[in-house]
This record gives sequence, C-alpha cells and structure tokens, in this order.
Amino acid sequence: MTSEIINLEKLCIHTITTKPLAFEVACAKYAAKGIKGISIWKDAVDGLDHKTVVNCLRIYDLTPVSYVRGGFFPALEKGKREKAMDENIRMLQEAAEMEIPMLVLVCGAEPGLSLQTSRDQIRAGIEAILPEAQKRQVKLAIEPLHPMYADTRSAITSLKQANEMAEYFHDEFLGVAVDVYHLWFDEDLEKQIKRCGKNKNLFAYHLSDWNVPTADMLLDRGLMGEGCIPLKQIRGWVEEAGFSGFNEVEIFSTRFWAEDQDLFLDKIAEAYLQHS
Amino acid sequence: MTSEIINLEKLCIHTITTKPLAFEVACAKYAAKGIKGISIWKDAVDGLDHKTVVNCLRIYDLTPVSYVRGGFFPALEKGKREKAMDENIRMLQEAAEMEIPMLVLVCGAEPGLSLQTSRDQIRAGIEAILPEAQKRQVKLAIEPLHPMYADTRSAITSLKQANEMAEYFHDEFLGVAVDVYHLWFDEDLEKQIKRCGKNKNLFAYHLSDWNVPTADMLLDRGLMGEGCIPLKQIRGWVEEAGFSGFNEVEIFSTRFWAEDQDLFLDKIAEAYLQHS
Repeated sequence: MTSEIINLEKLCIHTITTKPLAFEVACAKYAAKGIKGISIWKDAVDGLDHKTVVNCLRIYDLTPVSYVRGGFFPALEKGKREKAMDENIRMLQEAAEMEIPMLVLVCGAEPGLSLQTSRDQIRAGIEAILPEAQKRQVKLAIEPLHPMYADTRSAITSLKQANEMAEYFHDEFLGVAVDVYHLWFDEDLEKQIKRCGKNKNLFAYHLSDWNVPTADMLLDRGLMGEGCIPLKQIRGWVEEAGFSGFNEVEIFSTRFWAEDQDLFLDKIAEAYLQHS
Repeated sequence: MTSEIINLEKLCIHTITTKPLAFEVACAKYAAKGIKGISIWKDAVDGLDHKTVVNCLRIYDLTPVSYVRGGFFPALEKGKREKAMDENIRMLQEAAEMEIPMLVLVCGAEPGLSLQTSRDQIRAGIEAILPEAQKRQVKLAIEPLHPMYADTRSAITSLKQANEMAEYFHDEFLGVAVDVYHLWFDEDLEKQIKRCGKNKNLFAYHLSDWNVPTADMLLDRGLMGEGCIPLKQIRGWVEEAGFSGFNEVEIFSTRFWAEDQDLFLDKIAEAYLQHS
C-alpha cells in the first residue's frame, strides 16, 4: 500500500530543478513554499564559502539530503581515472563541510571501453573513495541510469547492477539511489527495490516523470503526473522496502527553466501532493 | 568466434535506411552495389502493385527478408485494438503477395496502460494474427525495442521478454528480431541470444550503431563503426546461436538521408565489411 502524501514534510528539491535560481534565492523560495529538503548540485554552490552554505540551510530550516554528483570513474587513461577519484574525494570533503550526508554517484561510462570494463573501473573507483566516505561520514549512493545513457554517463543501467555493486562492498556508507526516470520500465523493479531495502542499501528516492513524447534525451523530464511513470506504485514499493527518507524532485527541463520559478515551485508542490 | 565478413552476400538493407529513394530506384542501386537482401518498409511500396514489387525484386535478384512493420497492438479502446489486428492481418497478406517471408512486429505500448497490460494486449494481438501467419506462411518476428521507446512504441523492452513471448506460443511462425541498437547495453544479452537460438526463435539480426553523442532519440542512428556498440562481439553470439540469415542494416538518420544515397550505400558496404 502506498501511503497518502498529505504535506510537504518529505519533499526535497534538487537545485538543478530550479537551475535559474542562485543558491541562496533557491533556499529562500523553497522555504517560503514549505519545502523541507534540498539536494545540492555542485555547480549551485561553486564559489560559495561552505560556512555560508551551512548558515543558509540553517536560516531557512532546510535539511540537506544529497550532494550531486560524484562518480564518472571510467576512463581510457589511468591518469584520468585517478583524477576522477581525487575529484570524488574532494566532493566528499565538501559534502562533509556543508553537512550534506550523502554523495550521489553517476558512475560514468567510457564509450571506448566495454561496459563490463567500465563497471570494473567503477568498482575500483568506489573502492578507492569508500575510506574517505567512512572517514567523513558521508554516504555514497550509486544511481543506476537509464540505458539511453550507457554510452557516456553510466555503465550501471539497472537497479540489479547497482544492488550487486552495493552488495559487493556491503558497507553502511555505500548504497543506491532509485530514480524513477531511469528505472520505471524495468519489469524487475519491484523485486530489485525490495532487495535493495532488505540489504539496507535504499538510500535515496528521486522523482520526475517521463514525458510522452520526450523531446530531448537529457533536458525534457516531466513534472510528476505529466507522463507515463506509475509513480504511486513505485513509491509504494519503495516504502514497503523500508524507505522513509525524502522524496527528491530532480527535473532537468529547458521548458520549466524558462518559466517563472516561483510558479514552477507551486506546480511542483501541487504535482507532488497529487501525483507522486 | 565471430566469422569474418568477406563479401556482401549476407548484407540486407532496410528501405527506410535509404528513405529518399523510391522503391524501384532503391532496388536498382542496392543491386548495383552487390547487395543481395532487402527489407521492405510498408511506406516504400504503398501504392505499388504487388506484382510490380515481385518483378522488381526478380529483375534485380534481391531476396526479400522482412516486411516492416506490424505490431502496435496495445490501445485503450477495444475498437483500436481490433483495428490493429486487422492491419496486421492485412500486412501478412501483403507480405505473402510480395513473397516476403517475415513480418517484423514493433509491438507497441500505450502510455495510459501499465506496461504489463500492454504486454497482455500484445500477447492477445499475436494470438489473433498467428493463424493468418501460418496460413500465409509468413513468419512473425517480435522486435524488442530500447527502453527509451517504452512509452509509446514497445512494452517489450528486452530480449528476455521477447524470448518469453515467443516461447509462450512455441510456434515455428513466431520468433524474434535482434537489433543491436535496442539491446547492446543489456548485460544479459549473450545469454538471451543463446536462449533465442536454442529455441529456434532467432529470426532476424539488425545492424546499426549508437552515436556518441546521440542527437535525437529516433533519427540519429549511426553507421556501423561510428558508435560504441560491440558489433563483432554481438554478431559472434548471434552466429554461435545458429543464426545464418541476412545481416539487416536499419538506420534512421536525418544526417544520412540528406546525403547522396549512392555515396551512402558505398559507406554502408564499407562499414559492413570493416566494422560489423
């Protein structure tokens, strides 16, 4: 049974969703709408002092949920792979300084390598940064991406693969982010969500919708209820799997970015209550 | 072991690949390049007398491989589903008249229905048309599509699902079309290709490549060797599974359609020999 959403207590917005807003403006507007959670994209806070970020979150009583996005481990050259590990370690340090409890991993893929080799390099990357995650007390969440991003963004294209990766390390600081946009069509989804929860790896839940038709592979995500994803059904599985964290709205959309962001936030809140 | 491609004997082109060419021009040009097989899209022969089509194939010594494309079974209304079945039966009759031995099924999906309900309607559609396929001696090939088409084009998004559907009916006139574009990322691919062959369901093999980046979800397929699909590896699996039919090149590409189609056919032949 999917629970009824009766308020915005569990609503979290990814800063990329309201990309036109500067970080502090976004915080003010989220708070004004009664939104309680925020997931912070690196570009949104680049150049800001980390103390400023923490203060801003306190002032607006916003709970930081995820720092987005680490990963991108595979590369043809060793030097590049080491650079990616360094960058991830730096992001874990930044997350700790900003008191963000989790780093989302978009794991990466290198089109010049087989997907299996890319996955081997992802495993090596995670192994290299996991001690830093433990030290900084920042969790890592592997986000499986839609297979249409298998060329350059993620060799991990199913929840099954993400589960296997998390189970391989079996560490309280490594888990999985379930994003409906990437996984909605998977006939194995309920089973893999349950498996994820059972192994205590269900760290995050991301919301949006699949537009029909979809005009752009990256920047045409829909607002909940606009598309064809069975959102309530999937949230039911996520809840049955024991997840009780924030519902994170992550929408990349040139259409919505062109709108008044105040009105867009109202639409998000409405869509969240009605269709998620 | 993947066999070496040493000539064009097994090369087949889908008419959509050279969309700007009228059917008879396409036949003449394919033959002039030494291409032996042709898969015929319905729009390419719409309005042509079926005897004209058969004569044209004879004149140019072209083997018809597939008629494309039936399917699109799911719909919200019963009347629409019945209309789809009628259309498929008509296409089977057309295929028989044109002496084309196989109809490819792009099975369809209805965004207002769950994927499972769409799959149930696909099963019902196949059940309804299979007797006509037997009667006309025209095979049906279920083509699983990339999950990015799960909203409106196909609720069958994996070779596993296509295999299961074919095995459910267990009929010599129903099998599967394996298209690298839709399946290349599937970690289960080798296993499912072998399963498909073992059950005598491997009816067709379609070639193209995945461009990096891909500019359009539908009309930016790459020429073999341009993208990141491990084509030789997959063909090896297909051959090990017992397939010895034509290698069908099916490329939708606004970029290539804008080129001189003679030069494009030369590029196809070259890419087929070098990179498939």
